[in-house]
Amino acid sequence: VKRRSTPEDTVVARLASVLGRPGPGGPALLGIGDDAAILKRIAGRTAWTVDTSVEGVHFDRRWLTLADIGARSFHAAVSDLAAMGARPVAALSSLIVPEHFPVPELLELVAGQAQASRQLRCPVVGGNLSRGGELSVTTTALGALGKGTLVRDGARAGDEIWLLGDVGLPAAGLRCLAKGVPRRGAVAVCVDAWRSPKARVRDGQRLLGRAHAVIDISDGLGIDAGRIATKSGVRMVLEGRRLEAALRPELVTVCRILGERALSLAVAGGEDYCLLATGAPRSRPRGAHRIGRVERGRGVTLEADDGSTTDVSAAGFDHFRG
Amino acid sequence: VKRRSTPEDTVVARLASVLGRPGPGGPALLGIGDDAAILKRIAGRTAWTVDTSVEGVHFDRRWLTLADIGARSFHAAVSDLAAMGARPVAALSSLIVPEHFPVPELLELVAGQAQASRQLRCPVVGGNLSRGGELSVTTTALGALGKGTLVRDGARAGDEIWLLGDVGLPAAGLRCLAKGVPRRGAVAVCVDAWRSPKARVRDGQRLLGRAHAVIDISDGLGIDAGRIATKSGVRMVLEGRRLEAALRPELVTVCRILGERALSLAVAGGEDYCLLATGAPRSRPRGAHRIGRVERGRGVTLEADDGSTTDVSAAGFDHFRG
Repeated sequence: VKRRSTPEDTVVARLASVLGRPGPGGPALLGIGDDAAILKRIAGRTAWTVDTSVEGVHFDRRWLTLADIGARSFHAAVSDLAAMGARPVAALSSLIVPEHFPVPELLELVAGQAQASRQLRCPVVGGNLSRGGELSVTTTALGALGKGTLVRDGARAGDEIWLLGDVGLPAAGLRCLAKGVPRRGAVAVCVDAWRSPKARVRDGQRLLGRAHAVIDISDGLGIDAGRIATKSGVRMVLEGRRLEAALRPELVTVCRILGERALSLAVAGGEDYCLLATGAPRSRPRGAHRIGRVERGRGVTLEADDGSTTDVSAAGFDHFRG
Repeated sequence: VKRRSTPEDTVVARLASVLGRPGPGGPALLGIGDDAAILKRIAGRTAWTVDTSVEGVHFDRRWLTLADIGARSFHAAVSDLAAMGARPVAALSSLIVPEHFPVPELLELVAGQAQASRQLRCPVVGGNLSRGGELSVTTTALGALGKGTLVRDGARAGDEIWLLGDVGLPAAGLRCLAKGVPRRGAVAVCVDAWRSPKARVRDGQRLLGRAHAVIDISDGLGIDAGRIATKSGVRMVLEGRRLEAALRPELVTVCRILGERALSLAVAGGEDYCLLATGAPRSRPRGAHRIGRVERGRGVTLEADDGSTTDVSAAGFDHFRG
């Protein structure tokens, strides 16, 4: 007996089988295939975010598999929850797919989302599939908040600036790909950092009750530090020597190959998905790099050893600049 | 003193001012401007949906203002919550915007979203702004579920088929626009139905505890009835005479002008955002049109007065067909 269903429904059913069905221990009572997903009661407050990756703007298929694209867009969205100190609960995926896009490729992209969702314990419980001229992946994710929240506007003069994770590697990796630098050793480390960013959920949890302000670095350390500065009404002073000490040796190595300054990729690179935080010195969590201080004032300055300062509050990637 | 902020942040701040700040009585503790929104505790289960409208696929700027596009995409998303019997709580908006898209036009689109969000008591508490090649609007909405849920898979043989709302008007309105039919009287009614769909939140609430299966009609009565049929493992029989009796006189008038059959626009038109439900005869809510019956079997048939039947399970707009 032939089953009647529309091509869209057939595709959705295949995507759903890659993403998995809601289980009894999971967050969803009803998953993909109805008008909306149904979630079990979430105790307490929730953090909720949406993030979009567009082909040609946020990703480039020359250097990423479709599975990479699925996974990295998922981590990028959940990174916003990490920066709030939330524990991911569930996600919905909304895809815009060009006509004649092969279904096996779509399944590969969704397999990347599924893999990331398993890593992050954040099942995809629903979504949407639309036709359009260019491929894009929109992920909306819900997270549970326990006590406390990490916000952008709590930085105070006297705080230290902390970095959790490594800045600059993804930007260096992308440049290596663009220049065709052979992918081995330190180059491979940088390329992998760009290709497979990880949402730092555990670091976000560790900052709860410790940090005064937190943001995840997506557009660049300079721009994102500037967001804390603006929201909190403070000046963020990045101390060049400390920041350099926090850089991974692989970044330094690769910057030598590329003929770039490691510090400038660290400040303006973007796509790092590290957490940038401020807090009192006594509260600094283990593993957080101290890279500067918060002062009264405004903006973001990078302070060199000789005391000279550079304004870096616009250093990074702004989607609306170009 | 000049404030430092990136162009993206400036645009987001202007959009946020159109959308309004979270108030003390609202669902959000923290709105636009951090990594994620924070929602107050939601009692009970939640329904959660995401929906995307893409220029050239779901909307056409020849016949819609940007405010229309914002409002209708918002209603389309909330319609999914209505079809679950959920009360809308809050939404996030994710926009993909082409380069050089004028900010005043973006503000107009967002004003349409803001208006719909007020009508539906569903504030926009956050979102995302991305560059891309084509304009698209993705809305994710959360709704609170009380007792019971409306799903697609509960239809049973012996149920009546109910329609809440008017089918066919939007499709007729769109055809009038395409043919340049002067917009007055019944034509204006159809054009407005297409331009300004309304999510039927109250009808969804009234179906709780009464309906066995519910879906909102977005792709067409035939396709969407087919979804209930497939999910529930039943045959949906649309009774032509009853369906015709349920049609608005304006649709009949306009179809006469267009030289189209009212019944075929009703079955295959799409973009109706009515609710289609099944339930026991004694449970039919006031205002619901009885348009057919559920039988054992599969598929969707339209039954004419003379007893002849037509398979209409693929009648409507399938984004993945073309």
